[in-house]
Amino acid sequence: MTSPAVPTPDHRFLRALRREPVDMTPIWIMRQAGRYLPEYRATRARAGSFLALAQTPELACEVTLQPLARFALDAAILFSDILTIPDAMGLGLHFVDGEGPKLRHPLRSAADIEKLGVPDPETDLRYVMDAVRLIRRELHERAPLIGFSGSPWTLACYMIEGEGSSSFSRAKALALDDPMLMHRLLDTIAQSVASYLAAQAAAGAQALMVFDTWGGLLAPAQFREFSLRHLAAIVTKLKADPATRDVPLILFSKGANGHLEALADTGCNALGVDWTIAIGDARARVGDRVALQGNLDPAVLAASPDAIRAEARAVLDGFGAHPGHVFNLGHGITPDIDPTNVAVLVDAVHEFSRTRGLLARS
Amino acid sequence: MTSPAVPTPDHRFLRALRREPVDMTPIWIMRQAGRYLPEYRATRARAGSFLALAQTPELACEVTLQPLARFALDAAILFSDILTIPDAMGLGLHFVDGEGPKLRHPLRSAADIEKLGVPDPETDLRYVMDAVRLIRRELHERAPLIGFSGSPWTLACYMIEGEGSSSFSRAKALALDDPMLMHRLLDTIAQSVASYLAAQAAAGAQALMVFDTWGGLLAPAQFREFSLRHLAAIVTKLKADPATRDVPLILFSKGANGHLEALADTGCNALGVDWTIAIGDARARVGDRVALQGNLDPAVLAASPDAIRAEARAVLDGFGAHPGHVFNLGHGITPDIDPTNVAVLVDAVHEFSRTRGLLARS
Repeated sequence: MTSPAVPTPDHRFLRALRREPVDMTPIWIMRQAGRYLPEYRATRARAGSFLALAQTPELACEVTLQPLARFALDAAILFSDILTIPDAMGLGLHFVDGEGPKLRHPLRSAADIEKLGVPDPETDLRYVMDAVRLIRRELHERAPLIGFSGSPWTLACYMIEGEGSSSFSRAKALALDDPMLMHRLLDTIAQSVASYLAAQAAAGAQALMVFDTWGGLLAPAQFREFSLRHLAAIVTKLKADPATRDVPLILFSKGANGHLEALADTGCNALGVDWTIAIGDARARVGDRVALQGNLDPAVLAASPDAIRAEARAVLDGFGAHPGHVFNLGHGITPDIDPTNVAVLVDAVHEFSRTRGLLARS
Repeated sequence: MTSPAVPTPDHRFLRALRREPVDMTPIWIMRQAGRYLPEYRATRARAGSFLALAQTPELACEVTLQPLARFALDAAILFSDILTIPDAMGLGLHFVDGEGPKLRHPLRSAADIEKLGVPDPETDLRYVMDAVRLIRRELHERAPLIGFSGSPWTLACYMIEGEGSSSFSRAKALALDDPMLMHRLLDTIAQSVASYLAAQAAAGAQALMVFDTWGGLLAPAQFREFSLRHLAAIVTKLKADPATRDVPLILFSKGANGHLEALADTGCNALGVDWTIAIGDARARVGDRVALQGNLDPAVLAASPDAIRAEARAVLDGFGAHPGHVFNLGHGITPDIDPTNVAVLVDAVHEFSRTRGLLARS
């Protein structure tokens, strides 16, 4: 743990999201509190189940902080599940070992959709808010805390299918066959996401991120209608509210590189970028409108330290001497990665970006 | 079965690949001989295993022809597995029920790679060549026959990992840590693919397709080095040989829409296009260099007939009144699809494209 405590508004992570000059490029890693860490696996075993881990604030806090004790990471991210909102809506989140999350009561009719309400975060999702408050306190301003939610489209996919899918054909068929009903569902989810993120900010989250994990599976016209439109509604709502206006907001539509300009136009502060586009090309397309967060191929962490350093430098060089870069992987870290390699990456990003000089970045 | 027998060189599928005027837009469907068809499942059950089905020419012929007996499809595609070449190299292809294909002897060392030879198609892959000959004969010129292979990168991924993977981090790590060795492997595979495709053409295949299923998982620089370069070598070899020069060659790098121009520059005749880009945008980028094959979202087939017709028309309109469109899905048809909906799609594509008029397309 090498980073000194600084007043978090001046932390390089938040400065980079605001596209202000930084002393070195900040880095955090999607799924940094995860199975590649033995201490995570130990806490997970102690919790008894993934759900107990995610729903017990003390345990969620413990695993959130674990990677920051090992690596000089520039942000913590709330440990939670992406399906907290559908669970709070009564769909019955549960996990089957070796498979992904499942919902006991997937949406099967218009009536199922029409009866959905917007959860109240402080009552229906109290365990999340308690976790945010606890983590923020335990961080002692060492690094900013990121709150997050799944996107409306991504949550709708799970709510309709009841589980992950390679095609989400049931959700897509509903969107094509009854777009009004699909928008009704997406509107309800978007309101819930906005309220959930605002509550996380009120509880102490200093940046917010929306994971549109399945947006990239949509054809372009459907992406604009069923994903982008509802992401934009969330941005508009959070940016209109004085309580959340200044909290940096990151959108990440994985696999949706064809839509970076449109995502930047929503008024968010930053975009997550996966590794299938050169980050310099992404930056050229969005210009100075947003910061970018990314985009090393997660598989690079399976290679040698020399290769990790070379590829990290290639991403930094690709972004160039501009403000507004938060280094990250292009997707979550996988369980097979040796934690030693994460240290190599974090230190390389800091070292290369620092030695390239402050002036070029200010 | 509505299409009349025509001399296949003049068949609309081959004409479209050559970017010549057609009477209506040809259509075939990736994985058209597959689990969504009850008659396929019956033959598969009779065969006892997927491998027996793929390796018995009479059964492979039977399932290849099944979808053409139901739908007015404009091409047949050889029923075979993507891993025939690694199997012929001695890696031991097998299947575990409910999981994908696996290799008993994945590549685990430089020595494993160095001892690989280029299979002789007529001896080591005789069952494929026999299937091609039989299918071609049984087609009676009703529709052209497509031969195919996996791409060097895609086959290398399987050969290194031993099975499918969401990250292929072992293959990617080898590419980063020992690029010379990786290129040696890819060179051997590329030679094998070129020889395999040439042998399929000699046995009667009238068009050839390379499936680069995992190319889109590579970062851009790695895609160019480890996928594109070896695809280009295959195209160069086939186009330099008088025996294969005039056989239309289709490249399909799924998820690699950032590289369409570079793929078109290889000298292939057509590109497969997945559904995450508007086909009009794809056409604008590649211009008149290649035909395009695609690109309806496979999930559309789970929607209502009206939605299928509307989305099919949107793809046709998106491509516009240019020569060089082969209609297809953007990825393989999934097992959950009702065959009735395939008939709706095939007929809609023919009807809409025909009624739009010949003049606009010539």
